Amino acid sequence: MPSTALTRFSVAPLSGMTRHLADVASGRSDPDTVITGVRALNTYSERIASDKEIWIAGGRIAAVKPAGTYQGTAPRYDGKGGIIAPGLVDPHLHIESSMVTACAYAEAALLNGTTTIFCDSHEIGNVMDVAGVEAMLEDARQAPLSIFLTVPSTVPATSPEMETAGGDLTPEKIAGIFDRWPEAVALGEKMDFVPVCLSDERSHAIIEASLSRGRPVSGHVYGREFVAAYAAAGVTDTHEAIDRDIADDLLDAGIWVFLRGGPPTTPWHSLPEAIKTITELGASTKRVAVCTDDRDADDLLLFGQDWVTREAMKAGIKPETAWSMGSLHGATRFGMENDIGGLGGGRRADLVLLNDDLEPQNTWYGGELVVEDKSITPVLDQALSTRYTYPDAAFTSVKVPSTVAMTPDVPSHDVTVNVLRVALPGITLFHDKVDLKASNDWGTHFDEHGLCFVTIIERHGKSDGNVAHGLLKDFGLKDGAVASSVGHDSHNIIIAGTNADDMQVALTALKENQGGVVTVQSGEVTAMVPLPIAGLLSDKRVTMVAEEMSTLKAVWKDMGCTIPFMGFNLIPLSVIPEIRITDKGMVRVPEMTLEPLYVED
Amino acid sequence: MPSTALTRFSVAPLSGMTRHLADVASGRSDPDTVITGVRALNTYSERIASDKEIWIAGGRIAAVKPAGTYQGTAPRYDGKGGIIAPGLVDPHLHIESSMVTACAYAEAALLNGTTTIFCDSHEIGNVMDVAGVEAMLEDARQAPLSIFLTVPSTVPATSPEMETAGGDLTPEKIAGIFDRWPEAVALGEKMDFVPVCLSDERSHAIIEASLSRGRPVSGHVYGREFVAAYAAAGVTDTHEAIDRDIADDLLDAGIWVFLRGGPPTTPWHSLPEAIKTITELGASTKRVAVCTDDRDADDLLLFGQDWVTREAMKAGIKPETAWSMGSLHGATRFGMENDIGGLGGGRRADLVLLNDDLEPQNTWYGGELVVEDKSITPVLDQALSTRYTYPDAAFTSVKVPSTVAMTPDVPSHDVTVNVLRVALPGITLFHDKVDLKASNDWGTHFDEHGLCFVTIIERHGKSDGNVAHGLLKDFGLKDGAVASSVGHDSHNIIIAGTNADDMQVALTALKENQGGVVTVQSGEVTAMVPLPIAGLLSDKRVTMVAEEMSTLKAVWKDMGCTIPFMGFNLIPLSVIPEIRITDKGMVRVPEMTLEPLYVED
Repeated sequence: MPSTALTRFSVAPLSGMTRHLADVASGRSDPDTVITGVRALNTYSERIASDKEIWIAGGRIAAVKPAGTYQGTAPRYDGKGGIIAPGLVDPHLHIESSMVTACAYAEAALLNGTTTIFCDSHEIGNVMDVAGVEAMLEDARQAPLSIFLTVPSTVPATSPEMETAGGDLTPEKIAGIFDRWPEAVALGEKMDFVPVCLSDERSHAIIEASLSRGRPVSGHVYGREFVAAYAAAGVTDTHEAIDRDIADDLLDAGIWVFLRGGPPTTPWHSLPEAIKTITELGASTKRVAVCTDDRDADDLLLFGQDWVTREAMKAGIKPETAWSMGSLHGATRFGMENDIGGLGGGRRADLVLLNDDLEPQNTWYGGELVVEDKSITPVLDQALSTRYTYPDAAFTSVKVPSTVAMTPDVPSHDVTVNVLRVALPGITLFHDKVDLKASNDWGTHFDEHGLCFVTIIERHGKSDGNVAHGLLKDFGLKDGAVASSVGHDSHNIIIAGTNADDMQVALTALKENQGGVVTVQSGEVTAMVPLPIAGLLSDKRVTMVAEEMSTLKAVWKDMGCTIPFMGFNLIPLSVIPEIRITDKGMVRVPEMTLEPLYVED
Repeated sequence: MPSTALTRFSVAPLSGMTRHLADVASGRSDPDTVITGVRALNTYSERIASDKEIWIAGGRIAAVKPAGTYQGTAPRYDGKGGIIAPGLVDPHLHIESSMVTACAYAEAALLNGTTTIFCDSHEIGNVMDVAGVEAMLEDARQAPLSIFLTVPSTVPATSPEMETAGGDLTPEKIAGIFDRWPEAVALGEKMDFVPVCLSDERSHAIIEASLSRGRPVSGHVYGREFVAAYAAAGVTDTHEAIDRDIADDLLDAGIWVFLRGGPPTTPWHSLPEAIKTITELGASTKRVAVCTDDRDADDLLLFGQDWVTREAMKAGIKPETAWSMGSLHGATRFGMENDIGGLGGGRRADLVLLNDDLEPQNTWYGGELVVEDKSITPVLDQALSTRYTYPDAAFTSVKVPSTVAMTPDVPSHDVTVNVLRVALPGITLFHDKVDLKASNDWGTHFDEHGLCFVTIIERHGKSDGNVAHGLLKDFGLKDGAVASSVGHDSHNIIIAGTNADDMQVALTALKENQGGVVTVQSGEVTAMVPLPIAGLLSDKRVTMVAEEMSTLKAVWKDMGCTIPFMGFNLIPLSVIPEIRITDKGMVRVPEMTLEPLYVED
């Protein structure tokens, strides 16, 4: 019987298994299982061969043979003419975006046919520093999924002058993570691309810590003018190409391009434009992969790496090549193509059975059937029932007073205020200035100008209770409050509301649950996704979190909020134009200057 | 001024140079050189862009910019509209085949536009064991060329029962080489593919020593029936695909295919057939590279990696892709694509300037112009003038008595003899049986049956003077003797001759020079290539050895020898059918049985 400990380590390294696999492939020993009656999608040659069978032994592929070759007594699984392909490899994502633990993430990944991921645990690093990154690495080791780390490279995102973060990942700390964790295979996206291109000392010390250890550097860059210097700085992949021309520049500069797909209504879905470097400009596909980057828990089940791969196909890439971009290419970028990403001899038996539309029906992880007919098997269900428990410190990360001054005093005379104007798709925030006539309540101003409060409360216990007040324009919130302990990248508490009472109820709920996303109306919590781990992650299974998230999103929308939660929690992210708000106040980007609430003459 | 020590280490690691390169790419610091007015062959996207210039700093590429961008005072080199491409990367070859040292090999490589090689120092390992491999690694470190090692995996080629070798590379010794030499990046071709597929213990212990250290395994396999087990054993490249179908099987099994090109009259030139996996069967090119494998010194200057790359182009591959197969793909296979193989930012400035036929005109090695208009520059000439000196032991490797019984006694009655029949192209040797009527001299038999003597003399000082006598049929030698201390893979002395006196003169010449290839007629040495280092390598520059080899080949042909020297020195290689001769006697392959000279009833 399979043990509950179905993990990456359930399959032994190839080094000790070569004799047995040669025995099996030569017919001298029996395989453990034969998946027969399948077409085989070959990511090496980019072709589909018909009438094949896969011999599996010790959780690895011993051989791909003509269907019907095996005549022994080992169990056979009838593939019924479906397409067997290697499990998908997602070369860039953040588990925290899905608000679940690594163990829980595995369930969604396997349902999507994804068997290996490269994650950047950037968010938990921002809250808990090295301890958070290492807790998630422990979590990852216990997950029924192959999880590798690209070490968070840009924590904090800006500087202590601009925001109070929980983490400060120095070059020395990053070097320590590389030295202690072999699964830390690369440096995560070096988001501060402007300082990198300006030869900033700390940024390059971090790059050096990685390159000098033979670990490549992942990137994150906007703007064709930065590509040359960014490549010269040693960056060799990015996933932020938003259009054809920058994708083309990146490829030519020697940078792998990970085409990012996401829900088509969001700006995450840059694949359709960026892929034109191939379909319009004729670039080779060999250094192009696809990735998911960020997904809400509920979106994760609908828009996984398999969906992104199919989007590449829809954009005109042939299916075998698209699947290769979703699997082998990411593996190759991180030097793991001898272990995953293809149906080669000796590779891990991380397999999916696809229908003709490349939709995963079954998934085998290390030879173990974990998804069958789009549902998880009892083996996986059992494996998921015991998940890693985060250390106690992770459950006490929301350090805020019981009550705070939630709103600014109403101005007693005519004033001009700096406001943050939101607009779809919800990433850029615009800096407006609004004239307020003297009034003795905020409600009048709000009705007149489409405003509401936005308040940031430092929650790492690092300041003496920093609270920043701002005003959001066009957020659409009719009545009540919405709040979150996820507020990129420092993850201080962000609360938007129409009145102090509901905002206080929201804060209390977040404090009591030690994190979460919450909606409050008329003094009552109307929906909540508790995120007690670092204020970022649920401790539940992904399907339950997806359900909670889905409910919350419905309430969120009913309350009139114009931008979705994933945009809302970017409001404090002081690296995106034009204006953001952190616990230090409003920050103009890219000027990196603090703005007061009231415009001074 | 460039120092004489132009080596791989002249360019510092990227990890410490990123700030400077970002400064240069951004225009804040000057490059060292700008090569302007060129077209740029991009191996990442497989396209050629016109009107570009390359900014070089610290021996690396800082940026590729539109021609004319640079307006500063740094030296410019006018590319006159030629094509700039990355230096070639040869993923599989044996330096010893060219009978020169690594330092000397560099000259030919750079003339061919090759700036990185992966060599398997299999021959010197067979003679001198670990000491030989490590001496060549020291040699490689002093060469003006980037030389990496795939550690000899199959020394001896067979067993002490079948031949006496100088080396015995056990799993422990191989592990030691990996642990001491970071440039030992993979296990060299695991030639004993039948034992590997049969799960032989020692063969797999050697594979384990490599895989457990994260080093991939290179292969060497014939026969489609072996592909599955060989792949399951962990092998991930081979260069022996001799036709379309096995090349196709190998690719699909997850094995990189290195298409081997060589002088078109030799069986080394398997590229035109094997490449049909792409041109006829539609396989992707992304896991296909080209390589040279073995070259005589004189052929090396004519049939280098550049020539092989052009052969791929002639077979129908588009030029940008062919050049990528000759450069980036080999780099990718060995995980070095972030440092070499393309014009990406931060890469080594290992560059070639090509004409429209992809013929290298100039080569820059680490930013240093080493070949200009197809001739080496003074910088390279100076670098080549001081070459590594091998340790004393390397110069005393031919341990043979002054005189040996060179020929068998002539049989006094009718007998049947086992003979080795040679035939073009000279690799397979056929096992014939010939009836000899009683006669009192060998000459009569030789005239009647087209025979001559072939004698193998153990030269490692490991046996008590083993000598084996055999008869060659159809070798064509009219009068005299030819001899060599290169006799694969154990490199005992091989002498073919029509009479004992000339054969003795040949032996004396080899003993006096401590190795070489020699021709003798009428008691006089008529041509010789001295190979005093391990009996395998000249200590001269490659152009001089090429000249010596060319002269010897002309004499060789004049003497009537039907197969070329490179076939002759394979006569003792007891892994190729049907019959060979070692110092232990005649060996039938693949039966691995010893055959006596005289057939017993």
